[in-house]
Amino acid sequence: MLEQLKEQVCRANAELPKYGLVTFTWGNVSGFDRASQLMVIKPSGVPYEELKPEHMVVLDLNGRVVEGTLRPSSDTPTHLVLYRSFSNIGGIVHTHSPWATVWSQAGQGIPALGTTQADYFYGTIPCTRQMTEAEINGAYEAETGNVIVETFSKVNPDQVPGVLVNSHAPFAWGKDAMDALHNAVVLEEVAKMAYHTCQLKAEVQPMSQPLLDKHYLRKHGANAYYGQPGGDIK
Amino acid sequence: MLEQLKEQVCRANAELPKYGLVTFTWGNVSGFDRASQLMVIKPSGVPYEELKPEHMVVLDLNGRVVEGTLRPSSDTPTHLVLYRSFSNIGGIVHTHSPWATVWSQAGQGIPALGTTQADYFYGTIPCTRQMTEAEINGAYEAETGNVIVETFSKVNPDQVPGVLVNSHAPFAWGKDAMDALHNAVVLEEVAKMAYHTCQLKAEVQPMSQPLLDKHYLRKHGANAYYGQPGGDIK
Amino acid sequence: MLEQLKEQVCRANAELPKYGLVTFTWGNVSGFDRASQLMVIKPSGVPYEELKPEHMVVLDLNGRVVEGTLRPSSDTPTHLVLYRSFSNIGGIVHTHSPWATVWSQAGQGIPALGTTQADYFYGTIPCTRQMTEAEINGAYEAETGNVIVETFSKVNPDQVPGVLVNSHAPFAWGKDAMDALHNAVVLEEVAKMAYHTCQLKAEVQPMSQPLLDKHYLRKHGANAYYGQPGGDIK
Amino acid sequence: MLEQLKEQVCRANAELPKYGLVTFTWGNVSGFDRASQLMVIKPSGVPYEELKPEHMVVLDLNGRVVEGTLRPSSDTPTHLVLYRSFSNIGGIVHTHSPWATVWSQAGQGIPALGTTQADYFYGTIPCTRQMTEAEINGAYEAETGNVIVETFSKVNPDQVPGVLVNSHAPFAWGKDAMDALHNAVVLEEVAKMAYHTCQLKAEVQPMSQPLLDKHYLRKHGANAYYGQPGGDIK
Repeated sequence: MLEQLKEQVCRANAELPKYGLVTFTWGNVSGFDRASQLMVIKPSGVPYEELKPEHMVVLDLNGRVVEGTLRPSSDTPTHLVLYRSFSNIGGIVHTHSPWATVWSQAGQGIPALGTTQADYFYGTIPCTRQMTEAEINGAYEAETGNVIVETFSKVNPDQVPGVLVNSHAPFAWGKDAMDALHNAVVLEEVAKMAYHTCQLKAEVQPMSQPLLDKHYLRKHGANAYYGQPGGDIK
Repeated sequence: MLEQLKEQVCRANAELPKYGLVTFTWGNVSGFDRASQLMVIKPSGVPYEELKPEHMVVLDLNGRVVEGTLRPSSDTPTHLVLYRSFSNIGGIVHTHSPWATVWSQAGQGIPALGTTQADYFYGTIPCTRQMTEAEINGAYEAETGNVIVETFSKVNPDQVPGVLVNSHAPFAWGKDAMDALHNAVVLEEVAKMAYHTCQLKAEVQPMSQPLLDKHYLRKHGANAYYGQPGGDIK
Repeated sequence: MLEQLKEQVCRANAELPKYGLVTFTWGNVSGFDRASQLMVIKPSGVPYEELKPEHMVVLDLNGRVVEGTLRPSSDTPTHLVLYRSFSNIGGIVHTHSPWATVWSQAGQGIPALGTTQADYFYGTIPCTRQMTEAEINGAYEAETGNVIVETFSKVNPDQVPGVLVNSHAPFAWGKDAMDALHNAVVLEEVAKMAYHTCQLKAEVQPMSQPLLDKHYLRKHGANAYYGQPGGDIK
Repeated sequence: MLEQLKEQVCRANAELPKYGLVTFTWGNVSGFDRASQLMVIKPSGVPYEELKPEHMVVLDLNGRVVEGTLRPSSDTPTHLVLYRSFSNIGGIVHTHSPWATVWSQAGQGIPALGTTQADYFYGTIPCTRQMTEAEINGAYEAETGNVIVETFSKVNPDQVPGVLVNSHAPFAWGKDAMDALHNAVVLEEVAKMAYHTCQLKAEVQPMSQPLLDKHYLRKHGANAYYGQPGGDIK
C-alpha cells in the first residue's frame, strides 16, 4: 500500500541528519496521499539509520492506523491537523533544528531580511502564540496543529511553508515530503542568518516589499523564470 | 571482572569525539555496577582512539583500584561522590563541551526555554556555587562532587541528569554509561540553543510549567507514551 | 568552444559546496574570456554534483547565448554588467554564503579589522545602497550589476574584489574563476571574524592605515614578497 | 640535516587543517633545534596537502637559509625573534584561526574564565599593543616578534604559551612543534568559549586565583598528577 510514498517518506526521514537538522531522533517527516486520504509517517523513537520503508506507519485522517506494526510518531495528531487544514500540502517535516528552535524559544517570527528568505517564504515566518494550559493538558498534539492553523488565518500556507511553534520548534511543509524537507533546510538557514543580522544591527528593518515580491515571484507562480523550464536536468 | 561494563564504558568514551563533546582528552565516562559496588572509569590522559576495554580502571567506592594498571581519570573522586550520593545512577560523563562550558564559566544555570530541554531535564540545569579556597586546596576532586551534591539538595538528580560546575564544565549522568552520554549530548545542544535564545531576547522567560510538565512526563514515568512500548526496534 | 574555460568554470562551481559557501543551488560562478569577449556561466537551478563542462552556457556581452542548451543562471545579467565595467576581472562568484549575507542583510560594509582582510581586500568591503522600486521592477538583475558598479565609483575593484548587495548577498571576483572562488572564501571568512569582533567590542575601530598598506602590498603589486617567486610549487 | 625535525615540522603543518585552524595557507609551524641553533620552517604559500619534509627550509638564527630551495614563510623573522628570546621553546605555530583572531582584532587579551584555559595557560592570554608606523614600515616581521617579547616582559612564556597579535592573529608555542600545535588548538578553543561567556554575561569576572593555581599546577610542574606517570600509553 502506497509503496512509493513510504519509500519517499523513509528517504526524507533518513536525510534529516545529513542536513544537520536533527540530534538523535528529534524529527519526523510525513507524506500525504490526497487520492486515498492516507498519511505515511515515521514510527516514534526509531533511529534514522535503521529506518526502512516497511517501518513507516499508514494512517487515515482520523488517526486510525491502517498499516504498520510500530507506534507512529508522537507528533502524528499535529501532522493530521495540518493535512486536514492546508489543502495543497503533501509533506510535513518537524525537527528541533537549532536555529529555528532558537526563534521558537524566543517566541518571535523570523522577519524577511533578505532575498534568501524571499526566494522561498513570502514574508515573515510566523511564530505561534503560547498554548494555554487547557490546550496543553487536552489533546496536546492535535492542539499544536490547531494553534498552527490559527496562526495562518491571515497567512497563506502555500506561500509561507513553515512555522515556529512557541517554546517548541519548527514545522515546515511542501507539495511532498522531499519538498517539505527542502523548505525545512531553508528555514534553518534563514533562521541562522536572521539571528545574526539582528545581533549585528539591532534596529534592522524587513527588506523592501518590492524586493520581496520580486524574489518570491521570480521563483513561484505563473511568471517564474528561475531554474530550467522543464525542471532540473536529471 | 565486569567485562560487559568495561566494554560499555570504553565504547561510551570512544563516542565522545563523535558527538563533538571533546577536544583532545578533555572528557571521561564511568559506569557503576550497583551489585558489586564497583566503578569502571577511563584512565587519565589516554587518547580516545587508543582506548581498549582492558585499559579501563576498576575501583571500589573508597577509590581503591581493584583492577587495572593505568592511573584512573584525575576526576575519579568526583565520580565516586556522585555514585555514593545519587542512588539510581549508573553512568557519568564529564566533558568540557563548549556550549555547556560557556554556561559554567558564566556561573549560570540553563533555564528551560523549550520542549527540547523539557524532554530530558525537568527544569533548569543548575550551576554550582563557586568553590571555596579551602575546598580547592583540599580534596579538590571529591569536593567538586560534594558541591554538585549540595546543588541537588532540592533538585531530583533522576529528573535533572546534569549539572554545570562553576568556572569549570558540565557533568551528566544516567541509568548507565550510554544513557549518561545521551544526556551529555542533549545538555550540550540545549546549552547552545538557550545561549542564542538569551542573545535574541534578553528578557526571555522560562517555558510555561504546564508545557514543561507535559513534555517531561510524556517521555518519563508511568504515563510516558513516546517511543515504542518495548523500547527501540533493533 | 572555450573548452578550458568551461572546464574551469564547471570546477569552480563544483567546489562551492566544498568550501561551505552554498546550500542547494544558491550560488553560481562564471568566467570571462577577454579575447573573444565571451562569458561562460553555470546553468540555472542545476545541482553542483551533476554539473559537467558541457552544461555550461556561453554568452556574449549582450546576453545572447552562443552555445549551450540550458537556461543560464538567472543572475547572468549581473555578471555581464560587471565584466563590461570592471576591465581586469576574469571570474565572478555569487553565493548566499551565510556570514557575508548577514552583513548584506544588515546593509553594512565589512570594515578592515585585521590583517586577514588586508591580505586580500585593500580596505572596507562595501555594501551597496538599497535598490529603488524602479530598479527592482525594471531589468532587476542588470540593475543589480549597475548598483554594484555605482558602489565602486571611488573604489578600485581590482583592490577590493568583492561586494555585499544590500538585502541580498555577496559577489566576489578575480582574475579568473578560481581566483574569484578564492576571494569568495576569504570574504566569507573575514565576514565571520568581523561580525564577532563587532560583538566582542562594539566600538571597534578599523585597523591602522600603515598595517593595512603593509599587508595588502606585501602580497599585491610590484613589491610583493609573499609566496614563491615563480608561484606555487606544483 | 635535521631529518627528524623536518619530518615533525612538516607533520605539524599538515595537521593545521585537520584541527580547523587554517583556511588556504594561512598558517605556519616551525621547530627549533637548540643544539645546532637551527630553525626548520614551512615554505611560504605552499598548500599543506603538498608539503613534504624536503620542502622545509632550514635557517640559522640570523635568518640565513642553510638548507632548502624554497622561500621560507614570510613570518620567518617573527619566529626567529621568539626562539632567540624565549629560551625554552622548541616549536611555534602561527595561524589566523578564527576565534583567536577575533580577540586579536578586538585588541583584547583572553581572560582565564574557566579550568579549560587554566589547564594550559596560567592566566590571561595577552594581546600585544598596536604596532607603530615605524615598526610596521621597518623590519615588520621582526618587529612583530619584538612586540610579542615586550608583551611578555612580565609574563612567563613557558606558563602562557601563546599570544594575540593586535589587529592580526595568534601565535602559540611549546616545547616542540607538536606541543605548539596542541597549544594552538587549545588557544582557539578557549578563545571561542571566552567569547561566548562574555556575550552571555557582560560583567563576567576571571576565575578565582586558587582554582587557576589548582588546575595549572595539577598538570604542570613538580606536583603534577594528571595523565600517566610515564606519559601516554602508545
